[in-house]
Amino acid sequence: MKRFEKLFRDPIHNFITVEDPIIYQLINTAEFQRLRRIKQLGTTSYTFHGAEHNRFSHCLGVYCLAKRITDHFTKSFPEIWNSEENQVVQCAALLHDLGHGAYSHTFERLFGTDHEVITQALITSTKTEVNAILKQVSDDFPDKVASVINHSYPNKQVVQLISSQIDVDRMDYLLRDSYYTGTNYGQFDLTRILQAMIPVDNGIAFRFNGANSVEDYIISRYQMYKQVYFHPASRGMEAMLAQILKRAQYLFKEIPGYFELTSPCLIPFFKNKFTLKEYLRLDDGVLETYFQSWMESEDSILADLATSYTNRKVWKSFKFSDEVELDKMKKIISQSGYDPTYYSAIHSVYDLPYDIYNPSEDKLRKNIELVRKDGSMVELSEISPLVTTLSGNIYGNKRFYFPKVMLENDKFSKYIRNEELINND
Amino acid sequence: MKRFEKLFRDPIHNFITVEDPIIYQLINTAEFQRLRRIKQLGTTSYTFHGAEHNRFSHCLGVYCLAKRITDHFTKSFPEIWNSEENQVVQCAALLHDLGHGAYSHTFERLFGTDHEVITQALITSTKTEVNAILKQVSDDFPDKVASVINHSYPNKQVVQLISSQIDVDRMDYLLRDSYYTGTNYGQFDLTRILQAMIPVDNGIAFRFNGANSVEDYIISRYQMYKQVYFHPASRGMEAMLAQILKRAQYLFKEIPGYFELTSPCLIPFFKNKFTLKEYLRLDDGVLETYFQSWMESEDSILADLATSYTNRKVWKSFKFSDEVELDKMKKIISQSGYDPTYYSAIHSVYDLPYDIYNPSEDKLRKNIELVRKDGSMVELSEISPLVTTLSGNIYGNKRFYFPKVMLENDKFSKYIRNEELINND
Amino acid sequence: MKRFEKLFRDPIHNFITVEDPIIYQLINTAEFQRLRRIKQLGTTSYTFHGAEHNRFSHCLGVYCLAKRITDHFTKSFPEIWNSEENQVVQCAALLHDLGHGAYSHTFERLFGTDHEVITQALITSTKTEVNAILKQVSDDFPDKVASVINHSYPNKQVVQLISSQIDVDRMDYLLRDSYYTGTNYGQFDLTRILQAMIPVDNGIAFRFNGANSVEDYIISRYQMYKQVYFHPASRGMEAMLAQILKRAQYLFKEIPGYFELTSPCLIPFFKNKFTLKEYLRLDDGVLETYFQSWMESEDSILADLATSYTNRKVWKSFKFSDEVELDKMKKIISQSGYDPTYYSAIHSVYDLPYDIYNPSEDKLRKNIELVRKDGSMVELSEISPLVTTLSGNIYGNKRFYFPKVMLENDKFSKYIRNEELINND
Amino acid sequence: MKRFEKLFRDPIHNFITVEDPIIYQLINTAEFQRLRRIKQLGTTSYTFHGAEHNRFSHCLGVYCLAKRITDHFTKSFPEIWNSEENQVVQCAALLHDLGHGAYSHTFERLFGTDHEVITQALITSTKTEVNAILKQVSDDFPDKVASVINHSYPNKQVVQLISSQIDVDRMDYLLRDSYYTGTNYGQFDLTRILQAMIPVDNGIAFRFNGANSVEDYIISRYQMYKQVYFHPASRGMEAMLAQILKRAQYLFKEIPGYFELTSPCLIPFFKNKFTLKEYLRLDDGVLETYFQSWMESEDSILADLATSYTNRKVWKSFKFSDEVELDKMKKIISQSGYDPTYYSAIHSVYDLPYDIYNPSEDKLRKNIELVRKDGSMVELSEISPLVTTLSGNIYGNKRFYFPKVMLENDKFSKYIRNEELINND
Repeated sequence: MKRFEKLFRDPIHNFITVEDPIIYQLINTAEFQRLRRIKQLGTTSYTFHGAEHNRFSHCLGVYCLAKRITDHFTKSFPEIWNSEENQVVQCAALLHDLGHGAYSHTFERLFGTDHEVITQALITSTKTEVNAILKQVSDDFPDKVASVINHSYPNKQVVQLISSQIDVDRMDYLLRDSYYTGTNYGQFDLTRILQAMIPVDNGIAFRFNGANSVEDYIISRYQMYKQVYFHPASRGMEAMLAQILKRAQYLFKEIPGYFELTSPCLIPFFKNKFTLKEYLRLDDGVLETYFQSWMESEDSILADLATSYTNRKVWKSFKFSDEVELDKMKKIISQSGYDPTYYSAIHSVYDLPYDIYNPSEDKLRKNIELVRKDGSMVELSEISPLVTTLSGNIYGNKRFYFPKVMLENDKFSKYIRNEELINND
Repeated sequence: MKRFEKLFRDPIHNFITVEDPIIYQLINTAEFQRLRRIKQLGTTSYTFHGAEHNRFSHCLGVYCLAKRITDHFTKSFPEIWNSEENQVVQCAALLHDLGHGAYSHTFERLFGTDHEVITQALITSTKTEVNAILKQVSDDFPDKVASVINHSYPNKQVVQLISSQIDVDRMDYLLRDSYYTGTNYGQFDLTRILQAMIPVDNGIAFRFNGANSVEDYIISRYQMYKQVYFHPASRGMEAMLAQILKRAQYLFKEIPGYFELTSPCLIPFFKNKFTLKEYLRLDDGVLETYFQSWMESEDSILADLATSYTNRKVWKSFKFSDEVELDKMKKIISQSGYDPTYYSAIHSVYDLPYDIYNPSEDKLRKNIELVRKDGSMVELSEISPLVTTLSGNIYGNKRFYFPKVMLENDKFSKYIRNEELINND
Repeated sequence: MKRFEKLFRDPIHNFITVEDPIIYQLINTAEFQRLRRIKQLGTTSYTFHGAEHNRFSHCLGVYCLAKRITDHFTKSFPEIWNSEENQVVQCAALLHDLGHGAYSHTFERLFGTDHEVITQALITSTKTEVNAILKQVSDDFPDKVASVINHSYPNKQVVQLISSQIDVDRMDYLLRDSYYTGTNYGQFDLTRILQAMIPVDNGIAFRFNGANSVEDYIISRYQMYKQVYFHPASRGMEAMLAQILKRAQYLFKEIPGYFELTSPCLIPFFKNKFTLKEYLRLDDGVLETYFQSWMESEDSILADLATSYTNRKVWKSFKFSDEVELDKMKKIISQSGYDPTYYSAIHSVYDLPYDIYNPSEDKLRKNIELVRKDGSMVELSEISPLVTTLSGNIYGNKRFYFPKVMLENDKFSKYIRNEELINND
Repeated sequence: MKRFEKLFRDPIHNFITVEDPIIYQLINTAEFQRLRRIKQLGTTSYTFHGAEHNRFSHCLGVYCLAKRITDHFTKSFPEIWNSEENQVVQCAALLHDLGHGAYSHTFERLFGTDHEVITQALITSTKTEVNAILKQVSDDFPDKVASVINHSYPNKQVVQLISSQIDVDRMDYLLRDSYYTGTNYGQFDLTRILQAMIPVDNGIAFRFNGANSVEDYIISRYQMYKQVYFHPASRGMEAMLAQILKRAQYLFKEIPGYFELTSPCLIPFFKNKFTLKEYLRLDDGVLETYFQSWMESEDSILADLATSYTNRKVWKSFKFSDEVELDKMKKIISQSGYDPTYYSAIHSVYDLPYDIYNPSEDKLRKNIELVRKDGSMVELSEISPLVTTLSGNIYGNKRFYFPKVMLENDKFSKYIRNEELINND
């Protein structure tokens, strides 16, 4: 009999091997194929032009890591790892981002959607192809997979593989984002970490001799945040995106016919009432197609913002600490003929899904525990001064964004030095 | 005084440095930014999921190589290289793909467009931002740049850098496509080749001691064609794409209102009459948005094809030599309820822009010439039996594509063995 | 109970994992540790300064590949692969180069030693640590391992894994030599080849869909020969080495006391009678230590050659086809005051262990066979024109080496053009 | 006229280009070629088997970085960088390690040699080839080069390029050691750092926008120390090496004839009186050849230690804080029949040339200064909490080494837990 085996060539993991027909069928569903049309890093590709990779690739990569780990646990730790969990881990890994939409982060804040809720809905809804395939395993299998994703699954080993400080999601995206942006900051010693990873009672821990590699991984994550994810230019594009959608939503009440013609798939969201099917229709290409049509809108603000975004006329910014100080800046923007409601924005990285490292009370979920030779455990930051330093969460910042042309206005630019707002009256 | 310097982080060339403000302004035009929305490899990303890179990245990379070479020539060969050519080389390199559209190859065959003609039109038209910036150099500079791209520029050194067997275009795309697909077949020794490259009278040649590296490059190109560019699955997606557009064009006459509503930007092409501005509106996201709307078309063929394409239900294929033999296969397809006009396709790689290596009469343009220590020249294939073997152009093939479901039909599948059409009556 | 696991960090295979205590004990024997003191590429490091890697690393790498393949065969092909063979394959892989000595190739020709014979002797001799450890498995296990290495082992699957056109030895050294020289020519798609490799009746074959990767591997091997292994400068150092040892052997009869004092470990070889223990004493460092002492020899030829070698005053060379033509060149060398017996040398790459690809009668041993979907087999060169071209064995050449100073002699240098001997009387 | 250009293929820098004939002649001296016979990382290759690279490669790499930087400064900062300094920078970079001997660190402590002093002596002595070539530039050029190396050169820009927190030496060895060990911990963003590096008044600084890359480099250095340079096994080999040489020196007075016969080149060092010529005779191969001859010494301690070292029977260790506690351990070693004077050793990493980062009073020499947009300067640790954490110098440790067999003695091993000495009486 022939073994089932499908190979996907991948730049990060070389070959991703699928040996379970259920996984292969999940990949071939309409819902999963849709992830090809959602960029992994949203507006980051406007700063790092190489970073055009999509969530489809990332989800395959997360599955690949889940398979490597569960295969390894099955072979090496049969006494503490239950190999019947392998399939639920691999399915949850593959599907963990299924509900992501176009420019999720910005979109969600404006329209109140939540990609995690939608991921679970797509898995458990009887209307999706994904659900039908998962049901081939057992009637309650979709619920099991969903419960791993929402952390309520009883076996915490399984939950931590999918969602913890060092989980398959983070490991894949650091390596992948690093590769596609062309920076090396996200590289870490994956093989060493996988070798050090061990299942323990009710969780996942690491052998002490892997401590250096785990520390290195935490630092790499921090470096990717600083260098890539928090880059001011990408955040500028994100700020513009938010203002375009805000203007469109405002206009929807004024000129609804316009949007039904040019951007039908957005209507349910303007109305704040959408079905799963309507949600799945939106992707990066659809939104960008709409923005291009808006470039010719009769509303000059919408047309101008859409044009700036499409042609990457990215806004500039400065760091600030106190919002009160921004009033004078907004006033100058207004005096220059720009409505600051749409032509300026605050962007705080605290808004981003950001967690360098934070050991916590809720130990089983959050901490990285190391197992010494004699079996005793120690939490990572206890032995790593660097990780302790990073645990303080000090790296975020707030920026105020505005059209670049404002820099030519001396009244405005005199308040900015070294990209910071200064008191210069 | 501060030097002008802009850096673009790039996975292939690490940093791409721009020191000429003209180049920077060209990058910031609407026409060039549009290349972000055109995938470099079209349907190949359906086979190699990592290959989502776009023409914007490639064009920056081609410019980067042009800059490295012209900087090197300026420093090392002042007696035979005129450094006043540097700017025209760099601009032509940057802009050489400006006229590419969504899925150019398939689109062009159906709608009679030509991306090379459009590239030149965009450069010379007084209506484009690109043209306005090039004119800052001199009134005839746009024409000069266009003439490099259409090979009529008098200095053949310049022309060959942009378009020859080893030009900046091919060198960048081999490395880039190799990186993004995650294969290594396109890797070659770029640094060694750039060191061996020398300007000679009326052309470009290579030092003899670089011959091995040049041979290696030719073989890498051949391997990329075999392994990546000619991959049957990507060609299957391309075949389906052609049939979708063919069906839409047919329907346009029947139900024109439908397309005006769902796919306005395609109308000028259905009508075979379009302006540059209309051409620039089309990109991958726009086409895919249209396909998604067509999934709900009342025409069942259009809806079905659009659905298959969007959800990657890729057609299968076999190799054949004689088209006459296909009649019986089409007949069985027809008997199974599929109209073979839309539900089958021939795809020949001879159609692709394919040129492993072909030494020719037109020596100055086409051949790779090596310069020995004593100054005498020799053509590459004269000293490389491998290149001689490749020069025979033997690697193309023709495939017949059909819906995968046909394989379940024994009457059909009995004619296929090892992916080839066999005589089995 | 704790699993046995030892890890070796390796630049090629990342981590080399040892799970069999027998393998670990073999690595820790004096005979195997000695391989740390034998460079993998001999004089090649005088051309590619990075290539200082030793046979210890290579042998670990070969073992690593053997383990990957046998683990994979055990899991995926239980019906045709006997997992009881795993240990003999891994031991043979680890030990296949155990008998290599310092600058083996040159040394063997002069002193009539044979590293393959010595490898087998070291494995089967009751005086070695290696033998004692192998005997822990079974009394006849050392003989079994030796028979794999000399190709007489009955199971040809096992023999071909260790020694064939694509064996674990060649795969490791191509990747390793490529990495350490800093060239990329030896890179190939290892993972794809391992996936395509399958055990068949009495041998090893490859799935047809891996044909491109196998072709790529053959071409990489050819490129490494041309670019690295056949490099004229390394061959020049090898030619000098042969002449130093030749002069020393000649002097041994004249001034034997001298060598007993300065180079005791060479005496048994000068006398053409040595024990295994005496053989093991020689390594790169010992020979180089002797050469340094010879730099102060009273024999001016020995002193001069040893000084030139130690300080890398490498000889120059030209290609030639007919040895008769060399007489006039040797005469000029002689007239310049150099004895051509010691101050010139012919170096032919045909002497090297060189086999690009040569399909042969002895099919089971030599050919690369591909298995089609329908189970039929085809030999690689039948479907690859490139491999057919390479099978002709046309890439060797002969060079005549001489001291660089001769190039300043016009009478001599007028016969050389483009590094070839020309008729210029 | 033909440009002078020599290329060296290098795994780290791809090609190292030499365009100055002085540099090429320096490389070809006997003194510089000798560096091929000195390993870069000493006993580290016993832990990381790939790390066989030598100081020759490293010195070429350091020169390569010096050339890149001085070429860049010459082009980009003519107003503050004097291009007449280029040659002295490049020569000092190439020659900075010229005086290194075999296992320098251990050797120096025992025999009171100092490789930095010897480097300067080799450059300024009239008896060396290196000196003769440097004199071709000018009579005082050797002194100038030596003064750069000993930091007394007046232009501090030059001194800091060769020796500071981010100098060409450290940058090359981090990348090179990382590559050859096969770890990635030493990787950093070289190109970005070179772009950020600028000459300022009397020193070298970095543009503020390169701060992240500089921080990343400091962390990489820390990681290499922790993971590679401080590895317990390599330090165990170093401890054994020290004891072998200590025993030999002790025996020299007892049986001097023995060493004259087996190890003549060590005699001057046993006598504590050596010439430069005698110093240059020692290299790794010579020392290892001697150790092999000592394996058959009649002194059982020397023979046993030399055998253990040669065959890598590496000692084990535990961490401790108070030396007083070691007395009981030494006593048990003694009771087991081993003389603790030779069969145990303390190894402290504080002895190593180790400097994570330490901002200091002596600002111009030691600190990393960043230049903001407005021209103001800030020291790295002021803006980087991670660097502040590392500046505390907290990462060293002390280990006590002993023969592995002691672990089988319960009286001994009961005091060791998790590789630390515990109080367990």
